[in-house]
Amino acid sequence: MKTYRKELFFNIPKRRGLVNITQDVAQAISESKVQEGLVLVNAMHITASVFINDDEAGLHQDYETWLEKLAPEKPYGQYKHNGYEDNADAHLKRTIMGREVVCAITDGKLDFGPWEQIFYYELDGKREKRALIKIIGE
Amino acid sequence: MKTYRKELFFNIPKRRGLVNITQDVAQAISESKVQEGLVLVNAMHITASVFINDDEAGLHQDYETWLEKLAPEKPYGQYKHNGYEDNADAHLKRTIMGREVVCAITDGKLDFGPWEQIFYYELDGKREKRALIKIIGE
Amino acid sequence: MKTYRKELFFNIPKRRGLVNITQDVAQAISESKVQEGLVLVNAMHITASVFINDDEAGLHQDYETWLEKLAPEKPYGQYKHNGYEDNADAHLKRTIMGREVVCAITDGKLDFGPWEQIFYYELDGKREKRALIKIIGE
Repeated sequence: MKTYRKELFFNIPKRRGLVNITQDVAQAISESKVQEGLVLVNAMHITASVFINDDEAGLHQDYETWLEKLAPEKPYGQYKHNGYEDNADAHLKRTIMGREVVCAITDGKLDFGPWEQIFYYELDGKREKRALIKIIGE
Repeated sequence: MKTYRKELFFNIPKRRGLVNITQDVAQAISESKVQEGLVLVNAMHITASVFINDDEAGLHQDYETWLEKLAPEKPYGQYKHNGYEDNADAHLKRTIMGREVVCAITDGKLDFGPWEQIFYYELDGKREKRALIKIIGE
Repeated sequence: MKTYRKELFFNIPKRRGLVNITQDVAQAISESKVQEGLVLVNAMHITASVFINDDEAGLHQDYETWLEKLAPEKPYGQYKHNGYEDNADAHLKRTIMGREVVCAITDGKLDFGPWEQIFYYELDGKREKRALIKIIGE
């Protein structure tokens, strides 16, 4: 059995932002030399998400509007978590988007449907954050 | 280490529909001959979900009503993603339901609690779609 | 390849409640003697969740308020699933929070960011429930 570990680093200059990390994950799989297995990709922070969907700018704007409706940032006083930091909405938005994805590796490649792309979604940016790639297989 | 891969195919005649795929996954585990390991089951399309919950018709109607409240299909013009296709709501609904499940395999079987069942949830149907089963273990 | 399986048991005296199970998962990893691999932790019941976020009491209260807004418990008659049991809201709340987490094991330890903690979220308590830990690796 082979395993492989890699971290990705982010420093998004705004509160929220999306980064397509599909090629980074594909690169890590190539480095791992795993032909058949699984790859876990997870945000290492609890106000960020790793998820799979379409790389389409309109949809990404829809996510922004929709998450703000389901878990509004303001007023900050509506959340008991706020005070030291005002990022309770980021914890809730990340809960909807999810922490992690697990993907199949087949023939040394991401085993994906036609439109699947992996994104890092920063929900409380302006600081250094990380995502973890862990690969197991053979 | 053993690995096994299988695709499931769907062509739901309506925009939305649920299919219980627990037996398909159990069958794939049996074919894989894996006794101890993990099985990943994921939608290969970004407007569909694989999730685990109860096989109860009332609950499935509740999901329909609830998802329509949280991410309404219409008016189509409320979403920037819409235009070429009017399926932005399907991307959001799938985000709530999730892309994938990872389940334990123990003694060659799905290691499940008493009511767990695996479903494929089509959220933008009337076309051919696929789900992926990937098994690793020994 | 090594695999390891362990169940955790819960009997929450209220309808809803959160339990930090990070140390239980760390203990299972230690027992498994797996140095590199993956650990799956899932609720075995469909009205409970296993998720990762911050161990902060204010945030946990925010989850309660927020889930009740997105999937209210009452009136019971709003859900077709209700009747024999009035727990449809618990199925929906668990859908938002998620069934499972998959975490990396590196150097024999949970490979976590600075604030990641694993929780069992009971959404329909006053009865015995279980979570499953399944570890694979080497």
